[in-house]
Amino acid sequence: MKILSLNCWGRSVNYHLLDWRKKVILARGTVERVVVGDGSVSHEVTGRGIWQIPVDCPDHASAIEVILRTLTSADFGVLDSVAEIAAVGHRVAHGGERFTCSVLIDDEVVAAIRSVEHLAPLHNGPNLAGIDATRRLLPKIPQAAIFDTAFHQGMPPKAYVYPLPHEWYEKHGVRRYGFHGASHLFMAKRGAVLLGKPANAVNLITVHLGKGVSLCAIRNGRSVDTSMGMTPLEGPAMGSRCGDIDAGIFPYIMQAEQLAPKDYTSILNQKSGLAGIAGGTGERREILEGAAAGDLRCQLAQEIEGYRLRKYIGAYFAALGRVDALIFTSNYSDVGWSVREKALAGLEFLGIDLDREQNRQADRDEGETLITRPDSRLPVYAIPVADGLVFAEDVAAILNGGCRDHMENDYSFGQEDFVMPWREREV
Amino acid sequence: MKILSLNCWGRSVNYHLLDWRKKVILARGTVERVVVGDGSVSHEVTGRGIWQIPVDCPDHASAIEVILRTLTSADFGVLDSVAEIAAVGHRVAHGGERFTCSVLIDDEVVAAIRSVEHLAPLHNGPNLAGIDATRRLLPKIPQAAIFDTAFHQGMPPKAYVYPLPHEWYEKHGVRRYGFHGASHLFMAKRGAVLLGKPANAVNLITVHLGKGVSLCAIRNGRSVDTSMGMTPLEGPAMGSRCGDIDAGIFPYIMQAEQLAPKDYTSILNQKSGLAGIAGGTGERREILEGAAAGDLRCQLAQEIEGYRLRKYIGAYFAALGRVDALIFTSNYSDVGWSVREKALAGLEFLGIDLDREQNRQADRDEGETLITRPDSRLPVYAIPVADGLVFAEDVAAILNGGCRDHMENDYSFGQEDFVMPWREREV
Repeated sequence: MKILSLNCWGRSVNYHLLDWRKKVILARGTVERVVVGDGSVSHEVTGRGIWQIPVDCPDHASAIEVILRTLTSADFGVLDSVAEIAAVGHRVAHGGERFTCSVLIDDEVVAAIRSVEHLAPLHNGPNLAGIDATRRLLPKIPQAAIFDTAFHQGMPPKAYVYPLPHEWYEKHGVRRYGFHGASHLFMAKRGAVLLGKPANAVNLITVHLGKGVSLCAIRNGRSVDTSMGMTPLEGPAMGSRCGDIDAGIFPYIMQAEQLAPKDYTSILNQKSGLAGIAGGTGERREILEGAAAGDLRCQLAQEIEGYRLRKYIGAYFAALGRVDALIFTSNYSDVGWSVREKALAGLEFLGIDLDREQNRQADRDEGETLITRPDSRLPVYAIPVADGLVFAEDVAAILNGGCRDHMENDYSFGQEDFVMPWREREV
Repeated sequence: MKILSLNCWGRSVNYHLLDWRKKVILARGTVERVVVGDGSVSHEVTGRGIWQIPVDCPDHASAIEVILRTLTSADFGVLDSVAEIAAVGHRVAHGGERFTCSVLIDDEVVAAIRSVEHLAPLHNGPNLAGIDATRRLLPKIPQAAIFDTAFHQGMPPKAYVYPLPHEWYEKHGVRRYGFHGASHLFMAKRGAVLLGKPANAVNLITVHLGKGVSLCAIRNGRSVDTSMGMTPLEGPAMGSRCGDIDAGIFPYIMQAEQLAPKDYTSILNQKSGLAGIAGGTGERREILEGAAAGDLRCQLAQEIEGYRLRKYIGAYFAALGRVDALIFTSNYSDVGWSVREKALAGLEFLGIDLDREQNRQADRDEGETLITRPDSRLPVYAIPVADGLVFAEDVAAILNGGCRDHMENDYSFGQEDFVMPWREREV
């Protein structure tokens, strides 16, 4: 059973083709500069190599045609025909309040995704373009939508309602939705396995640590709070996103810097976070090296990143009351150790006794690493990101008629004998 | 020694006249509808009664003339002459990075306050108008400025720098300043006394619970973090202010509701928080009664208020590592008990064992109340607000040549035998 996963962004389309029975990635790649033109597809066939092919994709439909052509190419293809594809899984950023799990796509689902497009126009727009095109190109192949927001949809109102005029929620859907759902779901299931407990009996704090960063408070296996909000801007400091700031800053700085509202939002998304504090790209390796070389702003960026994560961890402890483990994603880059070290400093009173060596080792490990000492009252793990695996298992579950609630799904990674089938890379 | 305290707001001026040796309030009152016209002064003479006198004050200078005339009136005055006033203390909302303690006002100080007026135009403007007028009217009487921000000025950069473009901080002063300084300072000193420890040896989390709400993390007697930011909008949910929200909400809602930036800010300040969630005024008694009568939005407002406070308490625990006590202000209203009860629910793992009866009693007590059980690992206190006392002691210290750093001041309320000299009311 071959499953194609598609991730359509505003200017690029990312794809993975899996052989689900063999649990291998057959091919993966990215079409760059979609819409803008003068693009290319970077196509990797597992064990055979990487091809860079110039292509011109004026829209997402043509990018998906390119992908299907590439996958069936005589020279570097891996399929004889697109009919070999059993199903397509589409990442969809925002599922609003409607979608609490991945779902088989039909006209009604497309309409529902379109009805929340205004909540994430930069993401849902391209996602929908990709869905429309793929349905046209592969009309007989089942397609599924996997939502970044779905895992968090069980949060209680006290966690998702903002202290804002209630009609903004009722009329316009202004509330916390949360993102990085597949990643937090994966950590929730792995946390239960690592602790040797049933999935519905663990309380966890999970930390997705990429360029975007979010935390999730998990009670009895379910998300009860998360740091990203109506948009992915809320939370601790991220690579280039500001995270939590005073809402009163904006009228002041718009005046002082003569900014239009859209300039302000774009600066908060692209020039803030670690990049804003330290200057530069906000890439953690750059900041780590700068800090080691004595750059004060790089040192400050590290301190702020750790401090804001630490406060979130404390806040979610208070939200949960009992926490069985902390879990961080670890394979964003091999400098995650420094972030975790700073975030966990001073949390000994919560029972966290960090093993600095193991913590450094975690970024070099292929698998899951306990980064606290064996007698630490609270265990902390660093584990690989595995969004793509969650996507594929959701698609497989849908093909088998399941996937209504993640607690009912039989995920392979919820089993004791699970072995990570492939290594993912953050897009 | 008679000290006059002035609190100049945009549309009103609040005043207290103290006999500092006798530790009594001689008179207090408010001039209403300054600038707007058709105003009045409400003037209370301790032990004699309250007078309502129609006055017309086109500006803050005329309001201060009214106050001086009222205090020396033959009918309801308490002074023979304004020359009896030993000093005037002015509340100043924003002291920027310059002021770390209260200070004697001279031309240079006025210029420095003016130089940060853009950070708090709605507050510093009226404050400065009051200072200018009083200096003209009472040129020989020393005047002092007491800043809401001063107590927090020792925070480390990791607490006050936002993950925003660094030049916004350098060029425009965008950083966390914090407010409610006098209140947190009072709680810091009282906390040490209540714990029987030196002021420079206590770690506390203090919670100012009025219509505005802020928390402060205190390490060794000093503020190391606080929830209000560049403006008083940041923090947990307040009476009508939103507190922490996703910075990405604003471009969306401005479009959806066709708001101008200033409308948005005014809604975040005046129609959000508890008022936004529950509808109505956001007054806690109203919400408590509504919740008891089964109103779901009032119940939600209470839950959100408690939950967001609880997360801040957890965050500041993580920031401090060791906490000796929690302190709440208690005399805002007699329904503070319900807020504290909700905020502290589920924090047993931090050693908090709430005494529900004592917690209810606290709002009826004149003094300070331990609201946890005697064997609670972490004590929590509810104590009266006493900003005015801090103001007066700072003014007295300045007259005696002191007040450079609050840790060096000999505050009466830092002494074991302290008795609250009067009962304050929140303005």
